[in-house]
Amino acid sequence: MTSAQTTEHPLSTMFAPTSIAIIGASEKSPWTAFILKTLKDFEFSGRAFAINRNGVDVGGLRGAKSCRDLDEPVDVVFVTVPQSVVLDSLEDAAAAGVRNAVILTSGYAEIGPEGAAHQQELIERAADWDMKIWGPNSLGFNNVSANVPISAIPAMLPLLEPSIAIVSQSGATASELNDLAHSQNIGTSFVAATGNEVQLTLADVVDYLVDHEPTKGIAIFAESIRDPLKFERAVTRARAARKPVVILKIGRSELAAQVAKAHTGSLAGDDKVFDAICERLGIVRVFSPEDLIATCGLLAATGPLSEPGISFISISGGACTLVADGAEAAGVTLPEFQGDTVAALQGEIADFASSMNPLDVTGAAMRDPTLFERLIPIAASAPGVGLVVVNMGLPYAPGQAELPGVLTAIGKAARDSDKPIVMATLSSKSLTEISRDSIRRHDLPHVVCGVDTMLRAAGRAAWWSKRMREPAGSVLSGREEIRPAKRPDLSSERAVLDYLASHGVPVIPAQIVQSREEAVAVDMEGPFVLKVLSPDIQHKTEVGGVRLDVAQEELGESYDGIVRSVRGARPDAQIDGIIISPMRRGGTELLVGVTRDPNWGPMLTAGFGGVLVELLADIALAPLPVTRGQVLNMLGGLRGAQLLKGYRNSAPADLETVADVIVRVGDAALALGPELDSLEVNPLLVHASKVEALDGLAIWKE
Amino acid sequence: MTSAQTTEHPLSTMFAPTSIAIIGASEKSPWTAFILKTLKDFEFSGRAFAINRNGVDVGGLRGAKSCRDLDEPVDVVFVTVPQSVVLDSLEDAAAAGVRNAVILTSGYAEIGPEGAAHQQELIERAADWDMKIWGPNSLGFNNVSANVPISAIPAMLPLLEPSIAIVSQSGATASELNDLAHSQNIGTSFVAATGNEVQLTLADVVDYLVDHEPTKGIAIFAESIRDPLKFERAVTRARAARKPVVILKIGRSELAAQVAKAHTGSLAGDDKVFDAICERLGIVRVFSPEDLIATCGLLAATGPLSEPGISFISISGGACTLVADGAEAAGVTLPEFQGDTVAALQGEIADFASSMNPLDVTGAAMRDPTLFERLIPIAASAPGVGLVVVNMGLPYAPGQAELPGVLTAIGKAARDSDKPIVMATLSSKSLTEISRDSIRRHDLPHVVCGVDTMLRAAGRAAWWSKRMREPAGSVLSGREEIRPAKRPDLSSERAVLDYLASHGVPVIPAQIVQSREEAVAVDMEGPFVLKVLSPDIQHKTEVGGVRLDVAQEELGESYDGIVRSVRGARPDAQIDGIIISPMRRGGTELLVGVTRDPNWGPMLTAGFGGVLVELLADIALAPLPVTRGQVLNMLGGLRGAQLLKGYRNSAPADLETVADVIVRVGDAALALGPELDSLEVNPLLVHASKVEALDGLAIWKE
Repeated sequence: MTSAQTTEHPLSTMFAPTSIAIIGASEKSPWTAFILKTLKDFEFSGRAFAINRNGVDVGGLRGAKSCRDLDEPVDVVFVTVPQSVVLDSLEDAAAAGVRNAVILTSGYAEIGPEGAAHQQELIERAADWDMKIWGPNSLGFNNVSANVPISAIPAMLPLLEPSIAIVSQSGATASELNDLAHSQNIGTSFVAATGNEVQLTLADVVDYLVDHEPTKGIAIFAESIRDPLKFERAVTRARAARKPVVILKIGRSELAAQVAKAHTGSLAGDDKVFDAICERLGIVRVFSPEDLIATCGLLAATGPLSEPGISFISISGGACTLVADGAEAAGVTLPEFQGDTVAALQGEIADFASSMNPLDVTGAAMRDPTLFERLIPIAASAPGVGLVVVNMGLPYAPGQAELPGVLTAIGKAARDSDKPIVMATLSSKSLTEISRDSIRRHDLPHVVCGVDTMLRAAGRAAWWSKRMREPAGSVLSGREEIRPAKRPDLSSERAVLDYLASHGVPVIPAQIVQSREEAVAVDMEGPFVLKVLSPDIQHKTEVGGVRLDVAQEELGESYDGIVRSVRGARPDAQIDGIIISPMRRGGTELLVGVTRDPNWGPMLTAGFGGVLVELLADIALAPLPVTRGQVLNMLGGLRGAQLLKGYRNSAPADLETVADVIVRVGDAALALGPELDSLEVNPLLVHASKVEALDGLAIWKE
Repeated sequence: MTSAQTTEHPLSTMFAPTSIAIIGASEKSPWTAFILKTLKDFEFSGRAFAINRNGVDVGGLRGAKSCRDLDEPVDVVFVTVPQSVVLDSLEDAAAAGVRNAVILTSGYAEIGPEGAAHQQELIERAADWDMKIWGPNSLGFNNVSANVPISAIPAMLPLLEPSIAIVSQSGATASELNDLAHSQNIGTSFVAATGNEVQLTLADVVDYLVDHEPTKGIAIFAESIRDPLKFERAVTRARAARKPVVILKIGRSELAAQVAKAHTGSLAGDDKVFDAICERLGIVRVFSPEDLIATCGLLAATGPLSEPGISFISISGGACTLVADGAEAAGVTLPEFQGDTVAALQGEIADFASSMNPLDVTGAAMRDPTLFERLIPIAASAPGVGLVVVNMGLPYAPGQAELPGVLTAIGKAARDSDKPIVMATLSSKSLTEISRDSIRRHDLPHVVCGVDTMLRAAGRAAWWSKRMREPAGSVLSGREEIRPAKRPDLSSERAVLDYLASHGVPVIPAQIVQSREEAVAVDMEGPFVLKVLSPDIQHKTEVGGVRLDVAQEELGESYDGIVRSVRGARPDAQIDGIIISPMRRGGTELLVGVTRDPNWGPMLTAGFGGVLVELLADIALAPLPVTRGQVLNMLGGLRGAQLLKGYRNSAPADLETVADVIVRVGDAALALGPELDSLEVNPLLVHASKVEALDGLAIWKE
């Protein structure tokens, strides 16, 4: 394998060095043994040195007591000494002009407060030395395509054609994922364990991988995103390079957050927020190691699909039924074959009971192995199809049968096709050297292990491809939050509504009256709602401060009634008047809110009132600002979406108007600047094309 | 491997024969080659003969032209001749006294109407010959533990310690599932492909496997259950023998039903009904081949768990977090470690940041490999824990590392434990001979491949174990449907409510009046609802036949108004009077219905009114009759369950009263006998302890 590395990247020397020194190398150390084995397995072609107390050679590497004793510059030191002497080692390396260190040593923040203090010292000293630090508590990285291993992550031999990069905060998991990829015949171009990320984080390596030519897709296993802005910039660059970023972010559950906090001191963010970030940035999110590798492998093999649907072809009716069963839940569409496609298929196999998608070829391919050569292009050219998946068995063990003619036909059809063609086995058994040999002999396309896994990967491929056709989104990088010159008054429900109205949000009309006479003279269409206006009263209903369904002729009486009730219940409270608004009936109630995530800033939430939000937490989130299209997507993804499309006898809502109003609520919140803690419109009442905020609440940060 | 076969089962001769004859055996046939290989691989110890036109020996088997030419009886013939000569072959075998045939030949119902006619003829002739038929269109079966292969399903060598049986309607899938089990180090005791099931069905083989000692669990892959009553009896016997039955029933989706219908002519039943059947009978339902094998393998290894919770132990924080994240969705409870458990754990590892479940042992086990010997019993004895899962890596390829001390400790702890201990690897890579060797050397317990798969399997283990602690349920076998001597009147809403009232269902009071004078004299508390009573009018509202919220003093006027409206709209309609009932407000509306499934008979459905049922199809099903406990489970499983437990300001419903009423609705429906098509109570209004049917509709079959 040859290095195909761009050299301009600021981390090129770290990730593609020509000379490295292992500090703490010793014949006795199991770590040294691991490291020497990776150097050998990856056929490192640079120069490697062993630094140790006695300056002795280790495993064929030239020994020295210090980097300063070497007669040539060292690009990267790999630090494996005990924690207590790490700083001394680094100081020595710095003095020798070394500017990159990979630190395997553990005993830092991951072990508690004492380690955290060491970690802080390391950060500060590294800054003094102008030294880039990878780790500590990291197994290092293998730049597979450049034959550069600075790690204790074992190579999986034979090395496969590189395809995906694996980036994991955990070293053991990086190694496991690399093995898993190998077992699925997916070659890795780069495998990185980022460890404690005191300086370089996974965002840095993702950024580097965007320019790393052999890397076609990036698979990330992470517990937290330590540098959200840099991460966003890196994945945005990956998007521009059409490289898929697939992430397994763990720590979703409350229990996991507790476990993580107990062990690493790190706090997991709100998981739904991270979903919204992935949605905005086009990051593919998965929830198991298997899906991480299989999805990234598929996306790396196919690139963005031109159409969302897949054609599935198999000689097994059972496989076809499994795929039909699982498609919808996986987000996979199987376009129905029609017209020309059906005619073409029936031209190939006269006794087809039907030409459906999934396409059950039954035994016809046994009689004519070349059939697949003709079926695949037909299935690929069907309208709406962006990917063809062919299910066919492969041999795994000596003596196991394969259908050589059929496999050759699949390989040929795949090579000749403009659209991506992949294979899928029925179950997720690992591919063996015997399987790989069959793949090579028949020049087969990418193979996904197991139709169940394939469905989830294909659904995500369709999602990612759709995102790739849309304009790029942004969160932190595109957002400017400016403090308003003067804080607007948000002290009462009415003040919030007035503020929203000033940003174009339609709000319920209201008049504030200070006397029975003013109340009687109100000039709006009734019936009315009356509410006390008081800076001292939070829960107006409890003190008799609200009257509903008040007729025009009852206004005076109700005014007096509220004043009496409130005076009786809260003699201390200041009453600034009574707010009179028309009473609204019917329609659909939405909740629209803005909250602030510590990592990702202001987030918009939208959902329905009633049981949907309270029982089912049916809420959509998106980072602000939002566009009309984004809001339409949010609303469309709610379980209760049908409520707005005309439910029972209610007229369908004018969704674009609803979305525009929600966009304005978000803009109004953003205009309040970073001191806003939260803003809520509850309810936003929707009645066909009429959209109106009935109540609002805003809270500044303490 | 030795035969451990009960000989009393009526299918013993079929499934454990001592002499077999392959009809159509030929040196040229690839099928014969397959079959000869399985005979060799499984070391068949009985006598096998080759029957062919020329009576020649084949592959070392003695040849003959007919079974009649053999000097000894043949237990089973394996028919591989073309479809056109199958009947002749069978006739010849029958004449030789053969009473069991396995038919590999295809060309029957699976190919369409012509094949279906051949199939019907086969059924009839077999009955004449008193011959048991397996297939046709079947790859046969391997009674692995008895060394009896009558199949073209390849052996996976080396044979592993037998554990689960695989029963599949599809032959290719039977073979794939067998391979998959082998790749997970799960030995198969019996592998059966049932084919077209013209006579013997999967129910027969399941019944046989209950008595098949080496079989500890039964994994079924099926598209349809052809003999529901026999299937129910077999799984009920399996339950009594404490053998788990795990099923992957495909054809769930509408698309799958279309595909299946196009190719096999079989109709998939309503999938939710099958869910309810599994729930009642304690059948474990899964949705992927991987889960089928992993779940059955786990259940076979552990048997029923004494408690629902699991303890998870790992040296990897990432694995612990993955498990914490995925537990809830998989139905897995991880009991929080408390008191004695925490003290004991901290006694073992002083620097534990916390003693949580999942238990992250971090690097402590590296320093003291015997640690797991002590941690596992502590985790096993924690209150609420029925299973301990230990995550630890295994070697897969030559040169890969293992932690021998830790593995030995896990093996020892597992052997010494009263509660089941299993291992789980992080990802679902297939286990290799190198892995199996490590498992043997360290005498390790059952290994589940991948924590994600493990969670789903463990969740189902908890579910199945709970079912095993409860009384056995029944559907068809326990149900007697008797035609009532005289059909009750169900012709109107009121008649249905009166019928329900006669079965103890509280219904809304009503009076039927025939005149304005009778209406005015009604003696109930208002306000009222008035509805026209007419056998000719389906949609009362549309003809002005309903008035709501009528005050006592408006009764006369409303009576006249309805009569006028209905007469105007439908001059032809007979008016039998007006029904007057009190108007109900508030409360929670339930829908309770009874429908009839073609396979499984009367089914009860229950759900909430409003958006939950209409938008989310939030409906629970159960076969009738039901008990109070079963109805409580149904209601508890609804997404809107909280609505009954006191939602917003509503009082909590008296759930037991609600359940009792629903039980009575079901009993009332059953008492109508098999001629009832459907019965619906909509709404059943629940207001704290007040439960009342407001409307009812019953439909007889045509």
